[in-house]
Amino acid sequence: MTNRPHTPLLDRVTSPTDLKGLSDAELIQLADELRQETVSAVSETGGHLGAGLGVVELTVALHAVFDTPRDRLIWDVSHQCYPHKILTGRRDRIRTLRQKDGLAGFCKMKESEYDAFGAGHSSTSISAALGYAVSRDLGSAPEAGVGDAIAVIGDGALSAGMAYEALNHAGHLKTRLFVILNDNEMSIAPPVGAMSTYLNRLYAGAPFQEFKSLAKGAVGFLPQPFQEGAKRAKDLIKHVTVGGTLFEELGFSYVGPVDGHDLDQLLPILRTVKARATGPMLIHVITKKGKGYAPAENAPDCGHGVSKFDVATGEQVKTPANAPSYTKVFANALIAEARTDRKVVAVTAAMPDGTGLNLFAERFPERSFDVGIAEQHAVTFCAGLAAGGQKPFCAIYSTFLQRGYDQIVHDVAIQRLPVRFAIDRAGLVGADGPTHAGAYDTAFLANLPGFVVMAAADEAELVHMVATAVAHEEGPISFRFPRGEGVGVDLPEKGTPLEIGKGRIIAEGERVALLNFGARLKEVREAAQALSAHGIRPTIADARFAKPLDEDMILRLAREHEAVITIEEGALGGFGSHVAQLYAEKGVFDRGLKFRAMMLPDIFIDQANPADMYAVARLNARDIETRVIEVLGASGAAMRQAGA
Amino acid sequence: MTNRPHTPLLDRVTSPTDLKGLSDAELIQLADELRQETVSAVSETGGHLGAGLGVVELTVALHAVFDTPRDRLIWDVSHQCYPHKILTGRRDRIRTLRQKDGLAGFCKMKESEYDAFGAGHSSTSISAALGYAVSRDLGSAPEAGVGDAIAVIGDGALSAGMAYEALNHAGHLKTRLFVILNDNEMSIAPPVGAMSTYLNRLYAGAPFQEFKSLAKGAVGFLPQPFQEGAKRAKDLIKHVTVGGTLFEELGFSYVGPVDGHDLDQLLPILRTVKARATGPMLIHVITKKGKGYAPAENAPDCGHGVSKFDVATGEQVKTPANAPSYTKVFANALIAEARTDRKVVAVTAAMPDGTGLNLFAERFPERSFDVGIAEQHAVTFCAGLAAGGQKPFCAIYSTFLQRGYDQIVHDVAIQRLPVRFAIDRAGLVGADGPTHAGAYDTAFLANLPGFVVMAAADEAELVHMVATAVAHEEGPISFRFPRGEGVGVDLPEKGTPLEIGKGRIIAEGERVALLNFGARLKEVREAAQALSAHGIRPTIADARFAKPLDEDMILRLAREHEAVITIEEGALGGFGSHVAQLYAEKGVFDRGLKFRAMMLPDIFIDQANPADMYAVARLNARDIETRVIEVLGASGAAMRQAGA
Repeated sequence: MTNRPHTPLLDRVTSPTDLKGLSDAELIQLADELRQETVSAVSETGGHLGAGLGVVELTVALHAVFDTPRDRLIWDVSHQCYPHKILTGRRDRIRTLRQKDGLAGFCKMKESEYDAFGAGHSSTSISAALGYAVSRDLGSAPEAGVGDAIAVIGDGALSAGMAYEALNHAGHLKTRLFVILNDNEMSIAPPVGAMSTYLNRLYAGAPFQEFKSLAKGAVGFLPQPFQEGAKRAKDLIKHVTVGGTLFEELGFSYVGPVDGHDLDQLLPILRTVKARATGPMLIHVITKKGKGYAPAENAPDCGHGVSKFDVATGEQVKTPANAPSYTKVFANALIAEARTDRKVVAVTAAMPDGTGLNLFAERFPERSFDVGIAEQHAVTFCAGLAAGGQKPFCAIYSTFLQRGYDQIVHDVAIQRLPVRFAIDRAGLVGADGPTHAGAYDTAFLANLPGFVVMAAADEAELVHMVATAVAHEEGPISFRFPRGEGVGVDLPEKGTPLEIGKGRIIAEGERVALLNFGARLKEVREAAQALSAHGIRPTIADARFAKPLDEDMILRLAREHEAVITIEEGALGGFGSHVAQLYAEKGVFDRGLKFRAMMLPDIFIDQANPADMYAVARLNARDIETRVIEVLGASGAAMRQAGA
Repeated sequence: MTNRPHTPLLDRVTSPTDLKGLSDAELIQLADELRQETVSAVSETGGHLGAGLGVVELTVALHAVFDTPRDRLIWDVSHQCYPHKILTGRRDRIRTLRQKDGLAGFCKMKESEYDAFGAGHSSTSISAALGYAVSRDLGSAPEAGVGDAIAVIGDGALSAGMAYEALNHAGHLKTRLFVILNDNEMSIAPPVGAMSTYLNRLYAGAPFQEFKSLAKGAVGFLPQPFQEGAKRAKDLIKHVTVGGTLFEELGFSYVGPVDGHDLDQLLPILRTVKARATGPMLIHVITKKGKGYAPAENAPDCGHGVSKFDVATGEQVKTPANAPSYTKVFANALIAEARTDRKVVAVTAAMPDGTGLNLFAERFPERSFDVGIAEQHAVTFCAGLAAGGQKPFCAIYSTFLQRGYDQIVHDVAIQRLPVRFAIDRAGLVGADGPTHAGAYDTAFLANLPGFVVMAAADEAELVHMVATAVAHEEGPISFRFPRGEGVGVDLPEKGTPLEIGKGRIIAEGERVALLNFGARLKEVREAAQALSAHGIRPTIADARFAKPLDEDMILRLAREHEAVITIEEGALGGFGSHVAQLYAEKGVFDRGLKFRAMMLPDIFIDQANPADMYAVARLNARDIETRVIEVLGASGAAMRQAGA
């Protein structure tokens, strides 16, 4: 490719072992080269840029000091893992990042032994690292060869309760464990919450520069000559904070803050703690997301997620959209509703941009709540808002809503509180791969008593579903919609509430009914179009509701067709299973019905563009067409057999 | 009933309004009477005794000072709500606690306007209270009439990440909110974790007595005359701790510790904070679980859950068991496996007794881990243990496993790590009612790629499933079993691993196949027995696996019978849905099959004894029998119709 950077030292590194022979000065140069290589690679692939640039020096330092892969290095979320992948034998494939058959955009155990634990969702790293550490302590699996366990976790990820649960347990167990707090004051959006304010206080009281010479810190762990200076640093930190740190109160030894871009600080501190630590230790490292590449440093999101770009200018190649994204349609529809209904409030769990609630927050700042990476709290906070008379919209991606599942059951559904769940990224999501697939929401919501479960077939339907959710007061309601742009249908000025539990017939046909739930409707239409060449004219129905089902319509489809095929972009247990149960209960199968439920298959599908992923899932128009022909063909055969 | 206590003051209280006219001295007397009434009521019903006794004074003080129900009082978990129920108009039904058609054992919104938020699971109260507080601040729902919001949460419940998420958000929002930390050093078992140690430090440094006179505390909030003493108390607390409290660092004003059994402390402090608080405030109250009733105070679990008992002696009426409980069978089977396999380790989330892991911990303390009320961490900690070469058994009730759902998907299933899930309390659980029903686990696990999902038909099967889980190394595996005692079958000395994905035929019959998954097998057998009187001899099969399905067996049942009926004690999306999908895919329905899936119905079922609850669910032997007759009868009718 064009303009690859000059990287003489990096060219000699095929695995972290090669770092052991380098001097500190060479490691500093290596970090520079690694930064350039990261920028160059992401300029060709797009992906997560800012996070990786923020940990270039940390990545070099950790691999230089610790004995990976024996020492288990666990990157939380792992947006920041590209430099790590480059150093751990995957440089030759780094320009296939996030592409079909390429490197995953996250750490992945089956991709490399250096990826000690995969991720994608946040705040899991301390739990996993503690599992490794305890496993090492038990000594009963020597063949696993576990050395140290090191979790690298961002300050944003610390807002999640799971991270706190793990700190709490680690502080209790007191085993040797390293938690690197990568404090860049940014997760995807600026972090919220009192913890974030607290972390700021840890170093905001005195200018950061004052620590620089002292921050070799780590009282008691440092070689004797350093201890005096270290003690002064520690005392200074104590002085500017309320007292001992919160982490010390949870049982951790605390070291920091450390300048995460200064290898002259990072290397001695990591060497020291590695040599001396006996219990759990938190090393507080200050970094800058996007560090060292001006266009990322200057971007509002610090270059969190970028398209392909020009390295010289930072200018990104944006494909023009044919239609507004579902996310934006949702946000605008919610804003329109909120204009006329003061009770509409919106809650996001640290994803204001991803959910479109940033737009809502601009218009209604006082009715918009970002709770941090805290889906459990988000759901029950919404339940409290609903109990207090508001109309809360809980906007969470399908995959992250899994984090609040018990709260949905226990606090929302059992109490029948009218929380509105806006479920973005439903279905397969493309480059983020299996950790971000929105596969399970219909299954885990539609079997909850009293829940209304909808899916939008297109962006106009989404607008109506937002209005339906505002109007529905009798209990919880959800609507799902996919990632990406809509299909380009005209949008209503404002939505009209749908009748609960009523589907719609899109086209009357014969022999086979295609019963759609969700945004595959476009594919269903295309399949029907293609089938006309075979002389087959399917009925097309859009269920709109997985719960309550439109029983009249769905039973009529069975009566009037020899075959009914459901189509949805979700896993088993969802819409198709509810239809099957209806048919079973009503004795429809007794008389014979060619029933098929097309859904996400029983595999985790690796990243690719969404169309390729749906091809693997066999949910594209061609797959629906093929299925119809198979079923009706088999039907003919079966009828002949029955007649024989 | 016999020996009701003499309660002249309590007799005059029909609602909290009646407390407003009482003097502090009378409130102290009222608390005494309330304690006696609580003991008396629970002696007749059984239930949760210790938690309620610990908060008698707190309950009186809160209702006396705050304006419930306008001020929203939220009891975390709500094991401790019996005194609250007695004071809030439900004394006349208090002796129906936890019984069919009686009062629920937990707070329940639909039972009383004084139950501001229901519970059952832990650590939700701060989130819900914050939702109320924000709703009040918005002012857009004046008809909801929300005043203050008060969460009462135990120290054990603070080990859950969800509570931390809520504190973090509340500290950020800075709105007026009261969190009463009810610190009794006991949840169900003694709490674990660094937070617990921290809380101890908050008052352990100086004798508790020293605080007593000073603890009217609450610097800055107290009337002037108190401020000097308060400041001294505060300084003293600071002195014995590392610095400011952890809660202050999270943005809360901290008051305490306060003797929770001394109304002379509680009342003025609550009055003061109610008059003066502007932001979030944590009031640290020290109580004793079981307080004031010697048999509870002296019990190891402080009378957490009791059967009916004799008030004078505390002696409980225990019904002799006919067979060992599933829980105990599981624990013994795991111990037997762990004796020969050093890699077997066990993890509980604060339920060592409930899961039977207390027995395991006695035998293998170093291989047993109680992580606190922290299911998210528990699951990923197990994933780390598995990655480190151990064989972790994650023993969590079905209903609580919902808390770790995302971790099961993201950390266990996607990475195909061999974590073993031992799922107790699967199905309906009796007196604990809908919040504790184990309804969803099969549905939310069996659609995860690579998962093996089992259910034990009896306690001998459970022993084999434990062995199967130990032997299975290729990915995650789960087995579910119900609450209560087994059916009394002989137990093997040690389990024999089952062949993955193979079911078993229990009885060969004709016309109808009863395809069981789980512990309803006894009911299925009884139904088959009863059907013989009708000349019907069903085939009985036990699937053992919801995933992978025994496709050969299940397809053969369809070929060889006119009807197949699945039976499971779980919700839609589980075993029956997987069987339906298999039949659909294989074209079985094309040819007609009387297929029915019997499962938990689409309602939350209120507490009763399990048999009554299963009657509501229509899953008892009689229901199965009826279903068979309906289906075969309808079949005959349908055949005649077809022939006509």
